[in-house]
Amino acid sequence: MSLLFEPLTLRATTLPNRLVLPAMVTRLSGEDGHVNDDIRERYVRFARGGVGLAVVEAMAVHGSKSGPLLRISSDELKPGLTDLAARMHDAGPGKVAPQIIHFLKISRSGWRQTIDMLSLDEIDAIVEAYGAAARRARECGFDAVELHMAHAYTLSSFLSRMNARKDDYGGSLENRLRLPIRVLHRVRAEVGADFTVGVRFVGDECIRNGYTTVDAGPIAVRLAQEGADWISLSAGGKFEDARRIEGEPLYPYTGYSGDRCMPSHAYPDGANLYIPEAVRAALRARGLSTPVVAAGKLGTVELAERVLERGQGDLVGMARALLADPDLPRKWREGREDRVVRCVYGNVCKALDENFKRVDCTLWPKKLGQAPMSDDVIAPAWPDGGAGLSADVRRGNVLLRWAAATDNEAVYGYQVFRAEEPPAGGAPLLTHHASVRGVSTRYEDTRVMGGATYRYAVRPYDLAGNRGPMSEPVTASVPSAS
Amino acid sequence: MSLLFEPLTLRATTLPNRLVLPAMVTRLSGEDGHVNDDIRERYVRFARGGVGLAVVEAMAVHGSKSGPLLRISSDELKPGLTDLAARMHDAGPGKVAPQIIHFLKISRSGWRQTIDMLSLDEIDAIVEAYGAAARRARECGFDAVELHMAHAYTLSSFLSRMNARKDDYGGSLENRLRLPIRVLHRVRAEVGADFTVGVRFVGDECIRNGYTTVDAGPIAVRLAQEGADWISLSAGGKFEDARRIEGEPLYPYTGYSGDRCMPSHAYPDGANLYIPEAVRAALRARGLSTPVVAAGKLGTVELAERVLERGQGDLVGMARALLADPDLPRKWREGREDRVVRCVYGNVCKALDENFKRVDCTLWPKKLGQAPMSDDVIAPAWPDGGAGLSADVRRGNVLLRWAAATDNEAVYGYQVFRAEEPPAGGAPLLTHHASVRGVSTRYEDTRVMGGATYRYAVRPYDLAGNRGPMSEPVTASVPSAS
Repeated sequence: MSLLFEPLTLRATTLPNRLVLPAMVTRLSGEDGHVNDDIRERYVRFARGGVGLAVVEAMAVHGSKSGPLLRISSDELKPGLTDLAARMHDAGPGKVAPQIIHFLKISRSGWRQTIDMLSLDEIDAIVEAYGAAARRARECGFDAVELHMAHAYTLSSFLSRMNARKDDYGGSLENRLRLPIRVLHRVRAEVGADFTVGVRFVGDECIRNGYTTVDAGPIAVRLAQEGADWISLSAGGKFEDARRIEGEPLYPYTGYSGDRCMPSHAYPDGANLYIPEAVRAALRARGLSTPVVAAGKLGTVELAERVLERGQGDLVGMARALLADPDLPRKWREGREDRVVRCVYGNVCKALDENFKRVDCTLWPKKLGQAPMSDDVIAPAWPDGGAGLSADVRRGNVLLRWAAATDNEAVYGYQVFRAEEPPAGGAPLLTHHASVRGVSTRYEDTRVMGGATYRYAVRPYDLAGNRGPMSEPVTASVPSAS
Repeated sequence: MSLLFEPLTLRATTLPNRLVLPAMVTRLSGEDGHVNDDIRERYVRFARGGVGLAVVEAMAVHGSKSGPLLRISSDELKPGLTDLAARMHDAGPGKVAPQIIHFLKISRSGWRQTIDMLSLDEIDAIVEAYGAAARRARECGFDAVELHMAHAYTLSSFLSRMNARKDDYGGSLENRLRLPIRVLHRVRAEVGADFTVGVRFVGDECIRNGYTTVDAGPIAVRLAQEGADWISLSAGGKFEDARRIEGEPLYPYTGYSGDRCMPSHAYPDGANLYIPEAVRAALRARGLSTPVVAAGKLGTVELAERVLERGQGDLVGMARALLADPDLPRKWREGREDRVVRCVYGNVCKALDENFKRVDCTLWPKKLGQAPMSDDVIAPAWPDGGAGLSADVRRGNVLLRWAAATDNEAVYGYQVFRAEEPPAGGAPLLTHHASVRGVSTRYEDTRVMGGATYRYAVRPYDLAGNRGPMSEPVTASVPSAS
């Protein structure tokens, strides 16, 4: 049995496996901050798939207006959250934690409030709000709470190397930690010793003059010493390098640090693993066993297992891979990775978020608004004439085209397989290279080298993940520029 | 004998060791592009220290004006370069290669020429200019030539994922490689098969929508297949994220990608090693044995050896560490790392460059304009009352102060040693933590954690690197924020 499916106890709660859904913006909630049908559907779907810990998207600890965003800032919001926790518990074996957030004001003029503008009273109010929100989380029946100390938000801005405060809340690492530690203590006082409290922060700010793993190690050590029950690590997502768009508020995932937060297909798999690896080593060197959540383009079972084997993390976080296929945990556990609908890291979800639109996965069948559910066992098939796959070289890239497959329910998508010939360092096996939605019957491969020959095949899959037959292979030789 | 001091043959030249001085801006040359006294002194000093391959700072293949910059764009520049090569050969056992560069126009208004503005004739002229420059490099007696395909310059902009050309020079990886490959071929045709030609490019652009090691692997493979004799890897240094300063031309090392190009003390040692590691693996997987130069905060012999042992590179590049102490190769070879004046990665050199000032090392004795040379064997001493070291906590940082040491020649600087108590993962040994210039007798340690106790000692060193006695240790306990 894979280590991925061994339970792990985090203080007062035991996760059934090592897979974590990190908090992810959905833009499904209303302006009022209450749980609604769309939110319920989305998260029950995740719970049903069997993820060990589902972190429900960031909800505000304060009343500030900020478009569609969940809130946990007053008791009137508790019934909806209580119902959400109960439904998620009913749907699967995993544990559920809300991520709780405080953020500062921002305007369409380009102005934004920064932490050096906060009075000591305002800082005290943030501590209060976090404490009350965590208490509500426990009262609503959640198994734990995650304190958002990452990206462009208030607590992260205190931890930042860009923290410009001149008082006890800035000027040194420990001063930058002062508010996060106060929050952690107040939360503990409110929820008691028998409730689990995790934190998420960025291990590398990925901005000019930002901090790196050099500071992230000590930050994690201090947070663990002060009572954090897990340390979840992200990267980037800062205001400092966000793109300015006239008339729009700055959005912290639009710059380079945003790229680094959600590494696309242009990044290697596990691009951010150096972060949990360094942070975990810093914790262990000081005798702290606090579990670490690794994240960032970790979409295959081989990679996830390697994370645990190599000590790059104790838990494997996947946001986009679980959005593409919430049933991934169940399929992995059953040894059916071949049925997983794999995220292609095209970051359409990221672009939807940046444009303030509802965040769906582009691989889902159009208009479904949800990952499909089906118990169908009949695989899709090629038409009588076969797949008719062709490969043409256009301006140094390879364009693949094929015929539409058919299915008793619906063709969900196509997987594209590729091999390089002659093989680089091994047998010329066709390996999964990309996926496209069912409505498309073409793919342009931009990751080819001049002078090389590639072999391709495609394979359809249906709503249940059943794979149809592999097409006949075709080859394409890319001309060298020399 | 360390692998670091084994020779390595690059086509037609054999390096005596694996240490490389990468090209580094000095701002020592005049506007006329000729070699002058300052340039000669600087590079002869490097050669004297024993580095295996010294790459002389980028010199323009074309006549374009651009402030103080060496040129290799016409035959009248050859006598100065010939003399430089000869003097460097006389001074040490290492080999010498000029880095040759083409760059586009830029103005103080903020406007800059980009590669999509180049006509096909202008592209042909770039190929011509590189070929002629490489021929001159050989005629001047250099051992090799390095083609600059890195950072914000012309060939790098073609390789970039931001390349916006609509013709055969953009739109696919092979098209982006077309000009670099043409240059490589023309250079080879001009210098012949028995001359060594290396390339330097960035393995990670470190900008939004830039390329990463995913593209760097194939780029290196193609350049090696087309005849590059070494692949030297850098990171970042792009125009896209450079800071805009009114009335100044954009400078490509002023943004985040500039931080990544020359990682400061805020970055972990060997911060960019993931790049040569990935690129070398891509080369080896295709049966290419082209040597790879790793670089980026590689200042200790342990780290340099680990690079070779782990296959993260075949050659170890160090710019700032060799600027701080050009005799580092000789001292390492003689097992006298304890006499190396270690770079502190404070990036004063980087700031001088960004401000268009002469690039010296801040650790050098003021006004010397050069790393000191001395055969003195008398170590510095503390005054009669001792070092008088004190440690005070101020706003969460530790401020150290001590008495000035004395020396028969001059005190060059002080090394600061630190241990954490209780020790994290081992014995509480004092290890080198920082260095300060001889004119200073204070150091502020900003890398401390609240709740921890630190032990410090300081040690003076003189112009020859002789170490004086360690001071009595002092301790400081940093208050916790909780």
